[in-house]
Amino acid sequence: MYNFKNDYSEGAHPNILNKLVTTNFVQQLGYGDDAYSLEAKEILKKEINNPHAEVYFLSGGTQTNLLVLSCLLKSHEAVISAISGHIFAHEAGAIEATGHRVITVATADGKLRPDDIKGIIESHTLRPHVVKPRLVYISNSTEIGTIYYKDELEALSNYCRQQGLLLFLDGARIGNALMASDNDLTMVDISRLTDVFYIGATKNGALLGEAVIFNDLALYPDFDYALKQKGALLAKGRILGIQFLELFREGLYFELADHANSMAMKIVKAATEEGYFFLTHSTTNQIFPILPRHIIDELLKKYLFFEWKKVDDQHSAVRLITSWATPEKVVDEFISDLKSIRS
Amino acid sequence: MYNFKNDYSEGAHPNILNKLVTTNFVQQLGYGDDAYSLEAKEILKKEINNPHAEVYFLSGGTQTNLLVLSCLLKSHEAVISAISGHIFAHEAGAIEATGHRVITVATADGKLRPDDIKGIIESHTLRPHVVKPRLVYISNSTEIGTIYYKDELEALSNYCRQQGLLLFLDGARIGNALMASDNDLTMVDISRLTDVFYIGATKNGALLGEAVIFNDLALYPDFDYALKQKGALLAKGRILGIQFLELFREGLYFELADHANSMAMKIVKAATEEGYFFLTHSTTNQIFPILPRHIIDELLKKYLFFEWKKVDDQHSAVRLITSWATPEKVVDEFISDLKSIRS
Amino acid sequence: MYNFKNDYSEGAHPNILNKLVTTNFVQQLGYGDDAYSLEAKEILKKEINNPHAEVYFLSGGTQTNLLVLSCLLKSHEAVISAISGHIFAHEAGAIEATGHRVITVATADGKLRPDDIKGIIESHTLRPHVVKPRLVYISNSTEIGTIYYKDELEALSNYCRQQGLLLFLDGARIGNALMASDNDLTMVDISRLTDVFYIGATKNGALLGEAVIFNDLALYPDFDYALKQKGALLAKGRILGIQFLELFREGLYFELADHANSMAMKIVKAATEEGYFFLTHSTTNQIFPILPRHIIDELLKKYLFFEWKKVDDQHSAVRLITSWATPEKVVDEFISDLKSIRS
Amino acid sequence: MYNFKNDYSEGAHPNILNKLVTTNFVQQLGYGDDAYSLEAKEILKKEINNPHAEVYFLSGGTQTNLLVLSCLLKSHEAVISAISGHIFAHEAGAIEATGHRVITVATADGKLRPDDIKGIIESHTLRPHVVKPRLVYISNSTEIGTIYYKDELEALSNYCRQQGLLLFLDGARIGNALMASDNDLTMVDISRLTDVFYIGATKNGALLGEAVIFNDLALYPDFDYALKQKGALLAKGRILGIQFLELFREGLYFELADHANSMAMKIVKAATEEGYFFLTHSTTNQIFPILPRHIIDELLKKYLFFEWKKVDDQHSAVRLITSWATPEKVVDEFISDLKSIRS
Repeated sequence: MYNFKNDYSEGAHPNILNKLVTTNFVQQLGYGDDAYSLEAKEILKKEINNPHAEVYFLSGGTQTNLLVLSCLLKSHEAVISAISGHIFAHEAGAIEATGHRVITVATADGKLRPDDIKGIIESHTLRPHVVKPRLVYISNSTEIGTIYYKDELEALSNYCRQQGLLLFLDGARIGNALMASDNDLTMVDISRLTDVFYIGATKNGALLGEAVIFNDLALYPDFDYALKQKGALLAKGRILGIQFLELFREGLYFELADHANSMAMKIVKAATEEGYFFLTHSTTNQIFPILPRHIIDELLKKYLFFEWKKVDDQHSAVRLITSWATPEKVVDEFISDLKSIRS
Repeated sequence: MYNFKNDYSEGAHPNILNKLVTTNFVQQLGYGDDAYSLEAKEILKKEINNPHAEVYFLSGGTQTNLLVLSCLLKSHEAVISAISGHIFAHEAGAIEATGHRVITVATADGKLRPDDIKGIIESHTLRPHVVKPRLVYISNSTEIGTIYYKDELEALSNYCRQQGLLLFLDGARIGNALMASDNDLTMVDISRLTDVFYIGATKNGALLGEAVIFNDLALYPDFDYALKQKGALLAKGRILGIQFLELFREGLYFELADHANSMAMKIVKAATEEGYFFLTHSTTNQIFPILPRHIIDELLKKYLFFEWKKVDDQHSAVRLITSWATPEKVVDEFISDLKSIRS
Repeated sequence: MYNFKNDYSEGAHPNILNKLVTTNFVQQLGYGDDAYSLEAKEILKKEINNPHAEVYFLSGGTQTNLLVLSCLLKSHEAVISAISGHIFAHEAGAIEATGHRVITVATADGKLRPDDIKGIIESHTLRPHVVKPRLVYISNSTEIGTIYYKDELEALSNYCRQQGLLLFLDGARIGNALMASDNDLTMVDISRLTDVFYIGATKNGALLGEAVIFNDLALYPDFDYALKQKGALLAKGRILGIQFLELFREGLYFELADHANSMAMKIVKAATEEGYFFLTHSTTNQIFPILPRHIIDELLKKYLFFEWKKVDDQHSAVRLITSWATPEKVVDEFISDLKSIRS
Repeated sequence: MYNFKNDYSEGAHPNILNKLVTTNFVQQLGYGDDAYSLEAKEILKKEINNPHAEVYFLSGGTQTNLLVLSCLLKSHEAVISAISGHIFAHEAGAIEATGHRVITVATADGKLRPDDIKGIIESHTLRPHVVKPRLVYISNSTEIGTIYYKDELEALSNYCRQQGLLLFLDGARIGNALMASDNDLTMVDISRLTDVFYIGATKNGALLGEAVIFNDLALYPDFDYALKQKGALLAKGRILGIQFLELFREGLYFELADHANSMAMKIVKAATEEGYFFLTHSTTNQIFPILPRHIIDELLKKYLFFEWKKVDDQHSAVRLITSWATPEKVVDEFISDLKSIRS
């Protein structure tokens, strides 16, 4: 059984494991002051071309989201998210547990636009009886595989700055977004257009690790305290540093994301040729083909994947996720199975 | 410069790295449902001989302490700790950040006794104007290298049960405690005498990882939610499972702790022979020799360690920590330097 | 200008002020141990015919809601509410600020039914990635003037008990609900069918005060601590005791609610005769007539009230609230104005 | 039995009750926008001669302390308090419940000095492993009846400003402090020397009420949200406004505090003449005479008061609190009893 359920079913890219092995007995300072972390942070700051930024390494997406939001929001301030946003849909109420409402917007494509925010602002004016919207949370790529285009992110960023709203981008799959064939954003753009964002490595070839970037350190100079206080500061911070060092030293991060996307697109192309439609327009590594019931049942005998949404009595959309580790051979076999079952 | 500042300056025991490498491309379920985590949990449950227990893997000590305490305490309930306890001294207010007071007891040896608790109970009776002491936090070995003896832990455990207090043992260095030459406790005893405790691996040869054990799952059956909600649930839980699998498969955990202790005891023996005294009676891997100023200054040219406490104008206690990775050669050299500087 | 915006624009019923005056110099114990509070609690326990209950006096509705919910919910547990529920719509995120998500249900009449809850339960099964629904919050009368009928509350109560959900009733306007002409519930029913509920006095003739009733003290025996810790315990608890003593000593509470309802129903009758429709079917003191724009504008010259919702280009629903203190003369005049403007 | 246990055993000064009665049926806006609150706030701003200030009315001291501190502190920031400070000793962990450690200083007289703070700062430098001291909490008069002198408050204020620490003064008994015979501070001084402080009315003749004053609104412009979100915003804010309007319209507040102090000083004088000593040097309404066991036993037959602290086998310090409502006749009788028992 091959697992298409997620992009974190394997360990890490061999370069990372190799670096762990070769540096293993070099003594290093703890808590992120090791040489690998420091070097990785410098590389990332160059990657975003932003000397005012500060980079912190965390272990996972939920941890990153809850730490950033709890630091940036005052008690009565709320975050705006698409209803499909990870912070609302799959983090066990992590944001509310830090004391903040997540105000949701229903969107078809998982993306937020200025008009969505405008509606929220207008319905939250009865001060002090309602929460104060203060931060906009977006993910890129989104939870349904779509990406933000440059004009969209610029429009959203401009609107937020006019309205005094912070903009935070969840980049758990930012590599997949930036390597999508129709992407026109760069890491530098994202740093310029957001207040805080993060680069996810857990879903793109690392054992663990998210690099959160405050584009202006002055926005919250005490994030190191938060890391420690919320239990996110690893004693052996070297582990996280090594992940990012290897991923960004020579562009491996982007190669891995590109591979994941390519594997998905190969399936998209084949399924489209077979006449299937998709639930969302994804150009990244999460795709949602709509398949007949009997084909899903057949595929489930050889592959693991989520049945995402029933479309009608005979059809459901399924979610297939490819990754940095997905062998092309498996993808070819899947396509072959898809075609042969059909016939 | 050799670093005696802590026991987490290196990576991990090679067996662990090797297992990471050999299992790297085996697909596994995420979030701790991987085969390695499941196997490691079974091994640990056998180790404590407690089928009612439930084991969870976390990434670090502060994270573990704050999650366990925030789950076990109601809002008005407080935890009692020695003033040297890690939760009070070195976790950036992590426990208070979850809403609970840490009531401290000044103790000379870092250990709590029933009489200490009794005093706290008696001074917290003015309900509802004072917090309600509900849980006793101890560490073994303690933050100053001492250990609990069986009669001490039994007395404390009995007292807590009589008083309706929970007993939680921070085992960040439980290996060092159990392998101390004067130890008379077993892992089974500790499971029997506490409500919750954890087995620290970060400081004993793992890349990261603490195994928290609820000795009776019924005490808090929803800890999995807390793991997710507080950002402690790793997508690639396999990493944590592998640490514990390798450490406990054939007793490696205890061998590593034994080595760390032996290295410290070798220094203790030599320093004692040289006529030095110690700040605390430690039989584990943290030792606090009291040295003259000029000797400290000389040693600092070759070794890193903390100056712990000024004893008088001419003397300070320093803290030396040995670990699973400390080469005996370095220890011998340190002893030689200690002797030669003296002369 | 007469204010129909709310039912708390005046002070308190004269009986209450009189009692404050006549008891003013009698020394009493602080923090709710005064004779008036104790007597009022006994009267309320008789009113609900429940010797297992425990009664606590608080100052306001938001305070009551946040204290009760934060005590009854564990960190990962959530409350289910109608989207119009006060805890979601008008309490500045008070519940989220205590760490819990409010899961909302869109309902036309402000009431929750078992099927609504069922849908929520079914969409929250992906443990531990989603919050755990644990408590159902309802208000009676609702925020839009409707009331629960006995069969509805019984069905909801039964469903909650089957599903292991707690049922909490916000009774900020419970008097208005119980005195509605079509009501078939009693205070005893409500105590029997809910886990916790409260009797609001602020909106029914008191200076301030909500009496929260835990129908079984064993559900949360430490609520007194919560009162103190969250700043809800008044030093001069006598003030709250006196409000409830006077309101419930001889049924004044129900007389006042009856008056408020009657005043509203008089307007409903007149407006209906004039051919107007209403946004909701209210038999209590909050009514929502749909009026033409020009009539609203004319009425706003003499009366204060909220414009609730635009219905079409020419019509809006307005909210009129009558109270224990609304003079019948003013109501008659309002009706007269409504009729004369029309003509 | 006359009760000397506290200064909140009676209702309110008759002027306040009278104003409640005469304004009872005047319709007012809710939530603190009533005419009485607005007028009272203007009077208070004149009293402190500070047009930049913002005044908010709350219901009690614990509520005020927890709201102010939770707004002013970031998650990792802590408050420094004397160990006798109300926030540490008698508020059921209210501050920790909002997420912050209270760092305590043992002081003989309940007052903090720059050297106390300096010691705390120096022991909290191991960023990010320790909390960050950010705010100094003092009370005036203190919990043991002492007061701050002008040079003391100026020194503390200067030190705090140099160190980037906020200074917050709990004025639950500020009236007693300002009316003490040896006081040399004014309300204007206190506003000038602190960042936030409050004027307590509950313990000085009001039914309830604390007026918290942000000396510069810019320090936290969103406190109104906090009031609502934490359940501190009364629907009938008029009640609080009326308390302060009557107390400060013509100086009644200071007359009442003066009376309370005078009654205590009369007892101090008499007891001193009888040869008794006191535990603390109090010139306010809380006094702590040290009395022989048998005299305490005799007095307890006619009077209620706290036995504060055992001094030796034969003597204890007791706490006597006088108030705005203490009749001079009762004081005279108490003194007479004290003398006659002695003989």
